[in-house]
Parts: sequence; structure tokens; C-alpha cells
Amino acid sequence: MIDLRPVGYVIGLLVSVLGGTMLLPLAVDLWLGNGEWSVFLEAAILTILTGGVLALASSNGVQAGLTLQQTFMLTTGVWLILPVFGSIPFLIGATDARLVDAFFEAMSGMTTTGSTVFSGLDDLPAGLLLWRSMLQWFGGVGIIVVAMVFLPELKVGGMQIFRSEAFDTGGKVLPRAAQIAARISVVYLFFTVLCYIAYLLVGLSSFDALNHALTTMSTGGFSTYDASFGTFQGPAEYVASVFMVLASLPFVRYVQIMGGHTGPMLRDSQVRTFLMVVLVLVGVITVFRVVVNADHLEHAFREAIFNVTSIMTGTGFASVDYQLWGAFPVVIFFFIGLVGGCAGSTCCSIKVFRFQLLFASIRAQIRRIHAPHGVFTPRYEGRPVSEDVLSSVMAFFVLFVVSLGVLSVLLAMTGLDFVTSVSGAATALANIGPGLGDVIGPAGNFASLNDTAKWLIAAAMLIGRLELLAVYAMLSLTFWRS
Amino acid sequence: MIDLRPVGYVIGLLVSVLGGTMLLPLAVDLWLGNGEWSVFLEAAILTILTGGVLALASSNGVQAGLTLQQTFMLTTGVWLILPVFGSIPFLIGATDARLVDAFFEAMSGMTTTGSTVFSGLDDLPAGLLLWRSMLQWFGGVGIIVVAMVFLPELKVGGMQIFRSEAFDTGGKVLPRAAQIAARISVVYLFFTVLCYIAYLLVGLSSFDALNHALTTMSTGGFSTYDASFGTFQGPAEYVASVFMVLASLPFVRYVQIMGGHTGPMLRDSQVRTFLMVVLVLVGVITVFRVVVNADHLEHAFREAIFNVTSIMTGTGFASVDYQLWGAFPVVIFFFIGLVGGCAGSTCCSIKVFRFQLLFASIRAQIRRIHAPHGVFTPRYEGRPVSEDVLSSVMAFFVLFVVSLGVLSVLLAMTGLDFVTSVSGAATALANIGPGLGDVIGPAGNFASLNDTAKWLIAAAMLIGRLELLAVYAMLSLTFWRS
Ligand SMILES: [K+]
Ligand SMILES: [K+]
Repeated sequence: MIDLRPVGYVIGLLVSVLGGTMLLPLAVDLWLGNGEWSVFLEAAILTILTGGVLALASSNGVQAGLTLQQTFMLTTGVWLILPVFGSIPFLIGATDARLVDAFFEAMSGMTTTGSTVFSGLDDLPAGLLLWRSMLQWFGGVGIIVVAMVFLPELKVGGMQIFRSEAFDTGGKVLPRAAQIAARISVVYLFFTVLCYIAYLLVGLSSFDALNHALTTMSTGGFSTYDASFGTFQGPAEYVASVFMVLASLPFVRYVQIMGGHTGPMLRDSQVRTFLMVVLVLVGVITVFRVVVNADHLEHAFREAIFNVTSIMTGTGFASVDYQLWGAFPVVIFFFIGLVGGCAGSTCCSIKVFRFQLLFASIRAQIRRIHAPHGVFTPRYEGRPVSEDVLSSVMAFFVLFVVSLGVLSVLLAMTGLDFVTSVSGAATALANIGPGLGDVIGPAGNFASLNDTAKWLIAAAMLIGRLELLAVYAMLSLTFWRS
Repeated sequence: MIDLRPVGYVIGLLVSVLGGTMLLPLAVDLWLGNGEWSVFLEAAILTILTGGVLALASSNGVQAGLTLQQTFMLTTGVWLILPVFGSIPFLIGATDARLVDAFFEAMSGMTTTGSTVFSGLDDLPAGLLLWRSMLQWFGGVGIIVVAMVFLPELKVGGMQIFRSEAFDTGGKVLPRAAQIAARISVVYLFFTVLCYIAYLLVGLSSFDALNHALTTMSTGGFSTYDASFGTFQGPAEYVASVFMVLASLPFVRYVQIMGGHTGPMLRDSQVRTFLMVVLVLVGVITVFRVVVNADHLEHAFREAIFNVTSIMTGTGFASVDYQLWGAFPVVIFFFIGLVGGCAGSTCCSIKVFRFQLLFASIRAQIRRIHAPHGVFTPRYEGRPVSEDVLSSVMAFFVLFVVSLGVLSVLLAMTGLDFVTSVSGAATALANIGPGLGDVIGPAGNFASLNDTAKWLIAAAMLIGRLELLAVYAMLSLTFWRS
């Protein structure tokens, strides 16, 4: 029997903290004088109390180290239980949402997916809008900590390659996590403030700037308008592009820069590869828009850089329905969404370093074909990659593709059309936000989906966000023995 | 510099043999008294002579063994050059096709893909129709030999796991290939005759039975009617289903059964898995059709078994536009087409054994997560799988998915819509035949695609048929050194 108390203790504490943060939207609604503040009062009390009771009840089992099983349960537990409490304001607030919609929205927030089931966003009370953005911001910083501390420990998806990087836990997961969370939070907060100021400078209102700074730095993609970023066409798109890219780089590199070491960032091969891919795609799509769609150069470039970064980083802001541009950009967007940004950032999806590792392995494989008796070891950043890491990455890739297929079939089973099923599965697993087609495309909304589809997509967001194996490993029988 | 003479010699001989087989459609057209027989006379003379000259010119370099580079060039060369000669009758015959269409059709034939750019099939001269079917039949038996002799030698796509099976070449590729080709041909011919008789028994004309026997046993999918198998609705669908399944099992097992050993076939785990998947899918789709589409049980079952086996085996016969059934079967068909049948059969695509190996590796991976110090080796049929095989399979899988993405983008670039681009890429790489959507779907045709798209799809058929790495490895610089 696994001792659940250390897990319960941490989750309880985090739930209480989440409840505490509800005081912020409460204050906003109170200040604006709309009656909605009481929603957050109720939600905060309920959340803080429940979290506190859970923490107290588990406090006699606290320890600095966690077993492997406990680490798994903590990782998945946090991302399953926080959205439950995060959904309370949607249940009892102005959205008056049904359970499935409230949970979908909260999960879409915490996993930084950014798909929404709410429409009429423009008329929602400020507190609720801020709460959506805050969920994404917490989810963003949370996932960086998970990616840097928990996943390498769990050897999930090849993340152990980043283990030696800067943060070896030496078995003491929780103290390490707290320490890293503190450092990362400083960087994350700094960029968010910078992004906020930049949005102000290009003319966004203070409230818009705040919300979009929160959802930009988390590559979350929630907006406070039904038109999403279409509301701010112009210079704001450049600002967003810059910060979406900044949010997609490995945060450990920023911490190193804070410590005076700029070299690691400049030499990081996933950073270089990611930026190069973005540049090439922006170039290709700009040319396409100018030549094929007869667009103006600046307009074409601005829409290209904004939409390429939005999809590739998995932010999912939409400034325009790019499906109207033709099939070529749409197919590109579908596949680059499956690439994503750098590991150790707020990005989800397969990620650049995995493709680098897989290609390195294929190159070694081809060499081996030509010289059967030679020894060719795949390398990453000059260092040989262990079989252990390669098979983790391979497992991730296969599971991602197979999950995409299975989820597509399940979604189609609920009655969704082909494009909605396949793109819905992709956008959920890769935590992007918008799908393709008329229903859930960049100009669409997830509200009209049936409840089963919403539950499935919410589950896929969680599975994708935790790099699949962190969830799937718990489904294996071996997990529950020992 | 690679000595191309042994390669040229074998290709020259095969080209001449192909030219010789043109005498069969010649005889048919002559017997039916249509003027088209002269087409095959011209084509045969041209082909036999060119092949003969090539073989003669290279004959002073003949040897029993081939170097690795020569083996690669032979494998790819055969599948590139035979379609060139195979396309001659389409160029000068009643189809009066342009080069791109003639080459597309011949490549679609030889690779057993079965996508067609010709319409009005019902009115084409018998000789041309027979020639299309024959191309598929040759392509089918050819690929079994390649899969059993060449690919294990080249260590492509994990095929080396079947190396020890029955056929170790001991370095002498060509004599071995001839020996295996002879044994396999007996089985292949036997089943084709059986299939022909079965089609006759359910009422097909002698000519229809012959053509469809040739394209069934090769899982090729060319038909002599624009309506494809829709022409023969009824018992013929059961006959086709049975033989499509028989054609998807490993042919080495039939050879073993001929030698009195039935055990290997009964115990073969890819056979069991393949059959189980087919059964489950037939069940699911039958139930779906009865419950959701309110279809009759026998009709639902017959259409389900025919279309599931047609897509899963990559044959690609269409008896009905299953896109009208709803999105659920369509999404299933899209993904099972990417699974395919057994290795060492005429099936293409990723194939069942690769999924088995990948899942075995993931299972070992999950065990390793739970018990970091344990040693867990993935097993296939009870035997441990070497890292070498696993990384080959992984390379295949990644390249398949990445090729699918890149090809989709390229097709969209030529102006095709989203569904046509993605399903066109999939159906070409997996050698299935029909895609999805209005243009190239089960009720459609590849004729209306632009020329660039046709060349791209033809190239993808070749790349997919030769298990990607056999072609890609030649693109690496290492290949041309040494
Ligand atoms: K997102
Ligand atoms: K086929």
C-alpha cells in the first residue's frame, strides 16, 4: 500500500494556496463594484478550508524525499485536483457553467491549453476573466518545475537528459522543487512584468495587458475577447510574438544568465534549432502570403510571425482565421503544432529536443547500415546519448502518435467530424488551443462539443501536459505492486 | 566509385523479363480482335531490347555477392526502372497518357498501391486492363522477395529480426533471392489460382476473376471498373476478404506449411495480433452500422469485413463510399491504414510487428521507470529483441511519421486541400490506394491532381514500398564514400 500522506500534504497545501490567490479576482470585482466578488469569496473559503484540512490530515506523514510511486501520484494528482478547485468560480459565477464545462475550462487553463468553452467573453465580469488568465499563469510556472524536477526523476520522455543540467535532487525531491520554483518564479515574474509593460506601451488597457501578459508568458492563449488577439491587430502582435518565443526557451538558461552565465543559452542547440525553424517558417509563410494571397509585405510578415509563433509555441492565440489563407499554411500549422518549443519551458507537444535526439539516432542508424561493424553513438550537444534516454524518447514519440490516433477515433465515435476529431485530438494532446475546421478552428469555440468529447479532451490535455508516461505509467499493474 | 555492373545486369534481366510478359496482354488483345495488340508488340520489343542491351553491357561484372551499396541500388533501382518500362503501354496505348500519368499508374501498380489516374476503365481495351493487374501481381511477389532477402540484409526498418527465420543469405544475396523467389512464387501462384476459381464460383466473368485475383493476392487494389469492387457487391466481397487476409500473412509461413510445418504459422504472434485486430474492428464497425446507420446485419457485416480488410491490408478496393457512414469509421480507416498487415507479405505500411516491438519496448520502459535498477529486455515471440532491431524500428516509425508530415505540407503547397493532402500522403506512403475527401476518396480518382502532386505521390509510393530507409539511406553522404 502506497503511503498517500506526503502526496496529500503537498496537494493540500497547493490547493490552499490556490484558494488564497482567489482573493485577487475578488479584490478586482470588489474594486469595480460588480456583485461578482462574492463568488470568489465563497470559492476561496471552500478551497482554502478543503486544502487546509487535507494538508492537516496528512501532515503526520510528511517527509523530504518521495518514493517513485509518490512522485508519480503527486505530479498527476496536482494537475487533476487543482483544476477541480479552479473550476469552482466557473460553476457558481456569472458563467453559471455545468460541471463538464467548468472543469474543461479549468483544465484547459492549468494545462496552458487555452481551448475555451465560454463565449461572450467580452461581457464576463473582470474577476472571472482574470481567474482564467491566472490559472494559465500558475499552470505555466508549475509545469516548468515539474519538467525540471519531477520528470527527470521519473525518467519520463527522455527528460532525464536534463537531469545533470543544474538540478540534481539527490533524492530530496520536495526541497529541491521549492528551491527551483523560487528561482524560476523570479524569472517568470520578471518576464511577465516586462510583457505587461510592453503591452501597455502598444496601447492595450491595463486590464487587457495584465491578462494577456499572464497568458502569453504561460504560452496559454486564453484571451479576454471572443475575437482573441484579433482585437489587437498591429504592433501588439509583434510584442506577443517576442514574448511567446521568450516563454518557449528553457527557463534554466535564464536562471544561468541571472547568475552571469550567458554561454549556455547561446550554445543551447534546442534553442538554436527552435529559433531557426521559426525563422524559416515565418519566411516561407510571408512569401506565400505575399505571392499567392497578394498581401502587403508588413501585414503578411506580421500575421506570419504572430501565427507561426502562436502555433509553434503552443500558445494558440488567434489573430485571424488562417484557414482562409489556403491549405498550405493550415497543413504547416497542423504539423508544427506537433513540434512545439524547448524542454523546460511552458511549451508542451513533442518538443524540439526529442526530434533532435530521434534524428541523431536515425543518423547513427544509417551510418551503422553502411558500416555494420562500426560503432556509432547518437550525440546531443556533443555528448553521447544513452540508450536509456533514447528509448524514453522513442516511447514518448510512439505513445504520442498512438494516443493521437486512439483519441481521434474516440472523438469521432462521439459524433465529431473527421477534421474536428483529428485536430481536436492533436490540439488537446499538444496543449495548443485551437483546432481546425469550422467548429473548433481558430475562429471557433469548444462550447458546442458534446459532453463526452469535452471529458475526453480534458483528459487528453492532462495526459499531454504531463508528457504521457507520467500518467500512463500509473495505469500499469507494476505500479501498484511493491 | 561503386561498380554498377552487377546492378545493371540484374535490372537489365528483369526489364527483359517484364518485356516478355507483355506478350500476355498482346495475346489477349489479339484474341479479342481489338487493334490494341500492336501497342504491346512495340512496348515488348522496346523493353526486351533495352533490358537485353543493359544486361549484356553489364555482364562482365556479374558476381554472386553484392556489396551493401550495390544491394541498396539494386533494390531501389528495380522499383524505379521497371515502372518506367511498365508505363510504356499507357503512353502509347488507348489511354494515350501523358508521361506523368503513365508513370504514376505504373508506379502505383508495381508498388501495389492501386491509386489510379485513369477513368473510364470499363471501356479500356482488355490488354491494358490486364497489364495494370499484372504490374501489381509482379510488384507483390517482388516485394516479398525484397522483404525476405534484401531488407534483412540491409537492416532496414527492423526487418533483420526475420533474418534467421529461414533465409540467411550467407553473403550470397542473388542466388538466395532466386531460390526464395521460386518457392514464394509457387505459393503466390497457388493462392492466385485459388482466388481466381473462387471469384468464378461467385459469378465473376473469367476476365474479371483473373484481374481481381491478380490485384487481390498482391493487395494491390486496381480494378477493371471505375466503380471498383462496387460492381460485385455480394458474395464476391467475402471471397475478396478471405484472400486479402491470406495475402497479408507472412509468406515464409506458407512455405513452411508446404514443408509440413504448420506450427510456425499457428504460433506466429504477428499473425495472431493482425487477425485479432481485424476481427475486433469488423465487430465494432458492424455494430456501428447496425445501431447508428440502421443497416441490416448481413449487409453491415459484409461491408464491414470487406472494407476493414481492404484498408487494413492496404489493398484499397472500394465497394462503397464509406465516408457516407459517418466520421467514426472514416477516422478508424485512416489510422488502421497506417497499421497494415504482416511483414513478409505483400502489405506495406508500418506493419503489425513494428507496433508489437514498439509496445514491447514501451512496456520494458515502464517497468524500468518503476524499478530503476532492474534489467528489462523487450521480447518478441519470447526472444529478447536486440537494441539494433529496436532502433531500426524506431527509425522507421519516426521517419514514417515525419515523411507523412513533410509530404502533406508539400502536397498542400501544390494547392491540394487539407484532407486531400494529409490522406494523400498517408495513402501513398502506406501503399493503400484511396485517400479521403471528395477528390481522392473511395469514390474519387487521382486524375484531377496537378502534375507536381502526382510526381510527389509517385515518389512517396516508392519510398513507402521500400520501407523508407532503403531509399533514404542512399541520400546520405556516407553512402557515396568508401
Ligand atoms: K496553449
Ligand atoms: K494497395
